[in-house]
Amino acid sequence: MKVKRDGIKIVTIGGGSSYTPELMEGFIKRYEECPIKEFWLVDVEEGKEKLEIVGQMAQRMWDASPYDVKVYLTLDRREALIDADFVTTQFRVGLLNARIKDERIPFSYGMLGQETNGAGGMMKAFRTVPVILDIVEDMKELCPDAWLINFTNPSGMITETVIKYGKWEKCIGLCNVPVNSMMKEPEMLSINGEELIYQFAGLNHFHWHKVFDKTGKDITEDIIDAMYTKDDGTPTNIFKVDFVREQLEQMKVIPCGYHRYYYLQDEMLKHGLEEYHGIGTRGEQVKKTEAELFELYKDPTLNYKPEQLTQRGGTYYSDAACECINAIYNNKNIPMVVSTKNNGALPDLDADSIIEVTSYLTAKGASPVAWGKLNSAEKGWLQVMKAMEECTIEAAITGDYGLALQAFLLNPQVMGGNIAKQVLDEMLVANEKYLPQFAKKIQELKEAGVKVKDEKVQRLIAEGY
Amino acid sequence: MKVKRDGIKIVTIGGGSSYTPELMEGFIKRYEECPIKEFWLVDVEEGKEKLEIVGQMAQRMWDASPYDVKVYLTLDRREALIDADFVTTQFRVGLLNARIKDERIPFSYGMLGQETNGAGGMMKAFRTVPVILDIVEDMKELCPDAWLINFTNPSGMITETVIKYGKWEKCIGLCNVPVNSMMKEPEMLSINGEELIYQFAGLNHFHWHKVFDKTGKDITEDIIDAMYTKDDGTPTNIFKVDFVREQLEQMKVIPCGYHRYYYLQDEMLKHGLEEYHGIGTRGEQVKKTEAELFELYKDPTLNYKPEQLTQRGGTYYSDAACECINAIYNNKNIPMVVSTKNNGALPDLDADSIIEVTSYLTAKGASPVAWGKLNSAEKGWLQVMKAMEECTIEAAITGDYGLALQAFLLNPQVMGGNIAKQVLDEMLVANEKYLPQFAKKIQELKEAGVKVKDEKVQRLIAEGY
Amino acid sequence: MKVKRDGIKIVTIGGGSSYTPELMEGFIKRYEECPIKEFWLVDVEEGKEKLEIVGQMAQRMWDASPYDVKVYLTLDRREALIDADFVTTQFRVGLLNARIKDERIPFSYGMLGQETNGAGGMMKAFRTVPVILDIVEDMKELCPDAWLINFTNPSGMITETVIKYGKWEKCIGLCNVPVNSMMKEPEMLSINGEELIYQFAGLNHFHWHKVFDKTGKDITEDIIDAMYTKDDGTPTNIFKVDFVREQLEQMKVIPCGYHRYYYLQDEMLKHGLEEYHGIGTRGEQVKKTEAELFELYKDPTLNYKPEQLTQRGGTYYSDAACECINAIYNNKNIPMVVSTKNNGALPDLDADSIIEVTSYLTAKGASPVAWGKLNSAEKGWLQVMKAMEECTIEAAITGDYGLALQAFLLNPQVMGGNIAKQVLDEMLVANEKYLPQFAKKIQELKEAGVKVKDEKVQRLIAEGY
Amino acid sequence: MKVKRDGIKIVTIGGGSSYTPELMEGFIKRYEECPIKEFWLVDVEEGKEKLEIVGQMAQRMWDASPYDVKVYLTLDRREALIDADFVTTQFRVGLLNARIKDERIPFSYGMLGQETNGAGGMMKAFRTVPVILDIVEDMKELCPDAWLINFTNPSGMITETVIKYGKWEKCIGLCNVPVNSMMKEPEMLSINGEELIYQFAGLNHFHWHKVFDKTGKDITEDIIDAMYTKDDGTPTNIFKVDFVREQLEQMKVIPCGYHRYYYLQDEMLKHGLEEYHGIGTRGEQVKKTEAELFELYKDPTLNYKPEQLTQRGGTYYSDAACECINAIYNNKNIPMVVSTKNNGALPDLDADSIIEVTSYLTAKGASPVAWGKLNSAEKGWLQVMKAMEECTIEAAITGDYGLALQAFLLNPQVMGGNIAKQVLDEMLVANEKYLPQFAKKIQELKEAGVKVKDEKVQRLIAEGY
Repeated sequence: MKVKRDGIKIVTIGGGSSYTPELMEGFIKRYEECPIKEFWLVDVEEGKEKLEIVGQMAQRMWDASPYDVKVYLTLDRREALIDADFVTTQFRVGLLNARIKDERIPFSYGMLGQETNGAGGMMKAFRTVPVILDIVEDMKELCPDAWLINFTNPSGMITETVIKYGKWEKCIGLCNVPVNSMMKEPEMLSINGEELIYQFAGLNHFHWHKVFDKTGKDITEDIIDAMYTKDDGTPTNIFKVDFVREQLEQMKVIPCGYHRYYYLQDEMLKHGLEEYHGIGTRGEQVKKTEAELFELYKDPTLNYKPEQLTQRGGTYYSDAACECINAIYNNKNIPMVVSTKNNGALPDLDADSIIEVTSYLTAKGASPVAWGKLNSAEKGWLQVMKAMEECTIEAAITGDYGLALQAFLLNPQVMGGNIAKQVLDEMLVANEKYLPQFAKKIQELKEAGVKVKDEKVQRLIAEGY
Repeated sequence: MKVKRDGIKIVTIGGGSSYTPELMEGFIKRYEECPIKEFWLVDVEEGKEKLEIVGQMAQRMWDASPYDVKVYLTLDRREALIDADFVTTQFRVGLLNARIKDERIPFSYGMLGQETNGAGGMMKAFRTVPVILDIVEDMKELCPDAWLINFTNPSGMITETVIKYGKWEKCIGLCNVPVNSMMKEPEMLSINGEELIYQFAGLNHFHWHKVFDKTGKDITEDIIDAMYTKDDGTPTNIFKVDFVREQLEQMKVIPCGYHRYYYLQDEMLKHGLEEYHGIGTRGEQVKKTEAELFELYKDPTLNYKPEQLTQRGGTYYSDAACECINAIYNNKNIPMVVSTKNNGALPDLDADSIIEVTSYLTAKGASPVAWGKLNSAEKGWLQVMKAMEECTIEAAITGDYGLALQAFLLNPQVMGGNIAKQVLDEMLVANEKYLPQFAKKIQELKEAGVKVKDEKVQRLIAEGY
Repeated sequence: MKVKRDGIKIVTIGGGSSYTPELMEGFIKRYEECPIKEFWLVDVEEGKEKLEIVGQMAQRMWDASPYDVKVYLTLDRREALIDADFVTTQFRVGLLNARIKDERIPFSYGMLGQETNGAGGMMKAFRTVPVILDIVEDMKELCPDAWLINFTNPSGMITETVIKYGKWEKCIGLCNVPVNSMMKEPEMLSINGEELIYQFAGLNHFHWHKVFDKTGKDITEDIIDAMYTKDDGTPTNIFKVDFVREQLEQMKVIPCGYHRYYYLQDEMLKHGLEEYHGIGTRGEQVKKTEAELFELYKDPTLNYKPEQLTQRGGTYYSDAACECINAIYNNKNIPMVVSTKNNGALPDLDADSIIEVTSYLTAKGASPVAWGKLNSAEKGWLQVMKAMEECTIEAAITGDYGLALQAFLLNPQVMGGNIAKQVLDEMLVANEKYLPQFAKKIQELKEAGVKVKDEKVQRLIAEGY
Repeated sequence: MKVKRDGIKIVTIGGGSSYTPELMEGFIKRYEECPIKEFWLVDVEEGKEKLEIVGQMAQRMWDASPYDVKVYLTLDRREALIDADFVTTQFRVGLLNARIKDERIPFSYGMLGQETNGAGGMMKAFRTVPVILDIVEDMKELCPDAWLINFTNPSGMITETVIKYGKWEKCIGLCNVPVNSMMKEPEMLSINGEELIYQFAGLNHFHWHKVFDKTGKDITEDIIDAMYTKDDGTPTNIFKVDFVREQLEQMKVIPCGYHRYYYLQDEMLKHGLEEYHGIGTRGEQVKKTEAELFELYKDPTLNYKPEQLTQRGGTYYSDAACECINAIYNNKNIPMVVSTKNNGALPDLDADSIIEVTSYLTAKGASPVAWGKLNSAEKGWLQVMKAMEECTIEAAITGDYGLALQAFLLNPQVMGGNIAKQVLDEMLVANEKYLPQFAKKIQELKEAGVKVKDEKVQRLIAEGY
């Protein structure tokens, strides 16, 4: 990575996110290796207030560091992108209110609304895909040599959109889930994690991994054993219920935390419905946490990442981003788990699909390690999920309602039948503002009397969200 | 097909089936082309009474025909197989009582128990796979040139077992579902079916098809249109509820009747639960029909297939078998939809998988027509179902409990989580008698207190089934 | 196939070919099934004289038949294409003189110049690909429902160009080689060919086949045996030398006549060099035969296909075309060997490659029979030849010289090294007139002093060819 | 890698090789990281004298080092293998005399006899495959945890034999060709090689690579440029003639030195024939060099690797082996180019093929980096070469003569036709002693009068080689 001036210019789309302080901390920690010159935080009108709060806090963090870095805040994405070296994306179209809709509508029909690869995740993709493609178009014009480091969810689908449809090869998708596993699993076995050899492969929020010790011995089954008594690093946002042990023993690979929405669908659904009828869905909980975080951030004396941020599910996401940028900038040749082009690493999928896989990161980007063919069960799960992603992305780009419906029906989290259509229809109507590509269909649905039934979602819509 | 004597020897395993008269009718109709010499009906001790009733009726049918064919009844499979030309398999391990268990246990947990590729179908495979492999071993010894025409369900999985694991290439799997479509769809459009070009591909009970008229025009969408107003040939055993129209319009291919258990899971589940709590599951209904049929068959004057047989779901199954044997014997080079080795016809699956596909039948067997790559949604469905089949077959052969569990979890009809394990466990215990490969695990489960909860199933077990 | 008026309109590009009378004979024979209304023979200025001679003869043939068909002769392709039902292509850019160059230049370097998939064939593709794409563009405008039946060589590459690059799906490529085998092999074994089951797969002029008798027995090895004593139908244009017997016995499939240029390269090269230094290359021989044929055609009393035409190598080519059109028009559902989209029939190649394969022909076109995976040796040959075809087609479209060179180096008929470049360079210079896409490179080559060394080719160029 | 005692036990099969001092030097250099305890050099009776000379020299080298390592010399392979940690294989069945036959017989027919993947390489595989499978069987019994580091040629085919047929997964194949490129190319561009990112993929002696600088810029074309003026690290055993420049510019990847036998076949053949008729083939030259080396080794004062060894073609082979063992033993996670299981890294080949590819080496072995699909020309070359390897290995295992012939005909270095059979036949007869699997066929050939024509080879045979 060759930068054009005396320091790196980083642009963060969705800069008003509550995670921004973690990103700052990450870059402060790595400044000697990665000399940042300018940091641009970009957000939309709706997020202006948050941008200002977190932006000022970000500047305070740098000011408290030994380094002279300027944080720019702007609502003008194109201004920010000029000559960027790295663009990171952490935006959420429609903010947390959209997530709340994504979760509550499916639950109101008695089904899971998981916000990254369930019904909610597909809807999030519908909102996000057009925006990320716009960003890519701007980048082609304004910073054609920049790397796009995506951690906007659904991270795998968004990365696939950028690379396959946006034709922007310099893109890497990130996720904190593998990082968590690689931090917690060694602790479970009281081994130094540095000595372990990790191999991950699958899709974002749907990958498996194996672990080997420093003598080359496969210790995956030891970790599986330990998972039933210790903390395995499942992100805090996922309700932790044990996998069926005989399944894991047969698989001989470790699923990720999000596999619970499939392998333990019954338990996850029951828990989700309890929250839905009780303290509120995860989105509602996060909204409160976030409000509290922003209250903290307002404190003009706070110039470091507060402990409370670590409580949120997405922690280490931004740290992964910093590490990834560092690896590219300094040609570090280190293994990381990222979303990148398959290239055959998982031969059960097309070579041009985006997968999440242990890769070596150098100045030329991510080189995925070939995993080989999966066993039948994992193969089947992987293929159906990738097919669902393909339908989702294409529906998001074309606004093809039939394809959106196919994606919903194919998704194992969504109950088949007209009920899937009803959930989809309500979600489309509830997201009207953010789905120009489906405008005509949404109009039809409204004319046909489709209405959101969940009262909280009704209220959000009434409030203009 | 070269036969060794002055007429064909056909052996039917499961000869005591109520469908046997249809088989007889089919061969009487085709006698001039297919000169049968001997017909051997084989069954097990449990089915002896039925064998005798239907066997005598079968002989009466031939006696009423102009042809001199002898029907042999035996419980000794090996005696029957000697020098057979064609072996047809239509047996049901555990008879209809096993089917009733297959259906009732899943329903008792609030999920579908579909007897061909749902939970019931997987359990049926567990019972049937060891038996079919035994039959193949006998055939290698006793009739090494014979063709095995399988219509025992799950027909696709059983055919895959015979070809991939039994290494018996001369096997064709049959199903009546495509036949029904090809009979009813032309009627819907008032077209002569002979003129249409049908192309089917997928798996048994999970295939799609396209239709072209005699000018080469794709009329698939016309048929889709008509499906919403007319009888499309869905077998009578499947509850008929309309597919979501927008889905079919997007697919531009026609699903089979059994797709309802996936595409319309909610509706099928509700209907199934209604029957479960009411008139009884499909298996219980069929048991009654069958009892009535056998009452009819006892009539020593009945020497033709009674109308009532047509009411059962499996009608045309045996007619397909006759036609298939005819095509092989006479090298007819006609298109039929059969389960056979993929060989690339569906490039989204392994070349050595068994698929159900339009094939041309000649003396050398089935030559499948290459369909090409499927669109994403159909691809995903196909791949997950094939993976489920692979796990099921391998679990059936090895008795690997973990793999059985993986098959259950992967099956879209089965709700994920410990509930899947509970259903599996109860089903294993309820089928103890027929699952020697799982004997050790079943013992463990029983010791751990696993018990069937459904009272009717409890009663069947108590009665020794 | 639905035609727009009271009879079929057929347009033949390259209508001035000496094969045209065979085409006429074929349609006269099939008139009752395929009622032709108009026949348009199209050619270019250079071929005008031949067009007139053969065109008048064609009209005489129809006039001598009981049918009222008008043969139109034109140099205006666009006029002819209006509302065509079938377009057949049998043109040769640069006429036989181009073929002579294609053969003589490689021979002058001591290597094979085979005119369909050797050096000559690649050069022929360079000349033909741009023209066929122009024809497709005209068809899109003037006869968007027509079928394109290609028998211009290299037939496989041209068909791949039409379907993959021209995006014209209604195209079928034909070849007489399989027809010859299916006529001669039964004779060798004194079997009625109608009873045999043939299965072909591979590429045009590079396919293999297996044969089964009416009882399903594989008789491929019997035919291999007979090939060493009898006439196997190798086209008369190919020097007949026996395949190495142990190779065929290992393969257990029958290669096509053109495989001799690979499997028997040494013998074919020696024979070719003998002719090159003696009676002239095949192209030169054919030129004489053709001149004689046209002398015959001039005879105003000749109104039937003369025996002499059968002596040429391409016989049955046009008969295959008539049969193919008949099958489409009448939805005959008969097996033919054609070039069509793979769709998985040969899983060792991409699903969207064009292959030559036994297919069933109906009104919707060709449905290829899936062959399955090849053994290693055949797989390797197939893949290298397809890769060569891909490079050739893409070089022909783009005019990319490096890619043309890659195609030459990859082709097993071409000796590797700078010698390949020299042959390519001379051939490009010798074909300047027909290779606008390579114009710039040819200019450079000429400036760098590249000159054709073969004197006969020099003379042709001097004469303006 | 966990060793069983206070230091590593290494066993080298073919320990009498002239390369052994390089191996010693490599381990002396790395002793602090890799504490060797015992070194066992194993050879066969024929190589006893060489074993003793080089073995004593090896011990002198260790004695001159600060480390206490014992070198054991033995003709009893099984004794040596007991509890080995690493087994390296560098043996040559039939010694250099076999190589001389491998080269001279093809040249006597005017074709290339390249000793690694040409006719000679295939014959070498025929001799070596049975031996390596015996070694694997011994290892299963005597050192089931050991790693097999193979550098016996044809290294890729031997590694494929070990892993696919011997079912020994802990095997890595090595080659010095990539090492040479990675040493010389940075010099050509005056760049520090440590900073470059190399990506290799293909087959042993048939791979391509790309290079990126520390900013991620692809500098492959700069290296291609420089190859026409500077030393690119082509091993000294390969006649250096320039690749056709336009080809490389189109490929945009760098071929390996051995590609000259394909891309520059004409030049290589001419040069080879010159040597054949003049100073002798490469094998004959090496035989002299080797004799000189052994003269040196006899010097009881020589206790370091002499400069002359570096002149041989295979230099760095053993250094690569030391580095590979070091990486496994110390779990170093460093990139190396090795032969290992594809696992999808080259999706144009089967996932279970062995390929040569940039991999990361850890205690669990090699993790290949996924390269993705190749362009058509490279794909075609790769696939035909892999198919040739597959035929060769299977023929070597089964002794199937027809398959051996298929391998010869498929190999682009071998001229097609009966001439290929003649070369094969002579080579089989000349290698009778080492080809028990072909014994019956060789007997037949001899009875049919097959005799070696080359006089020098006749002499070798007469001398009992």
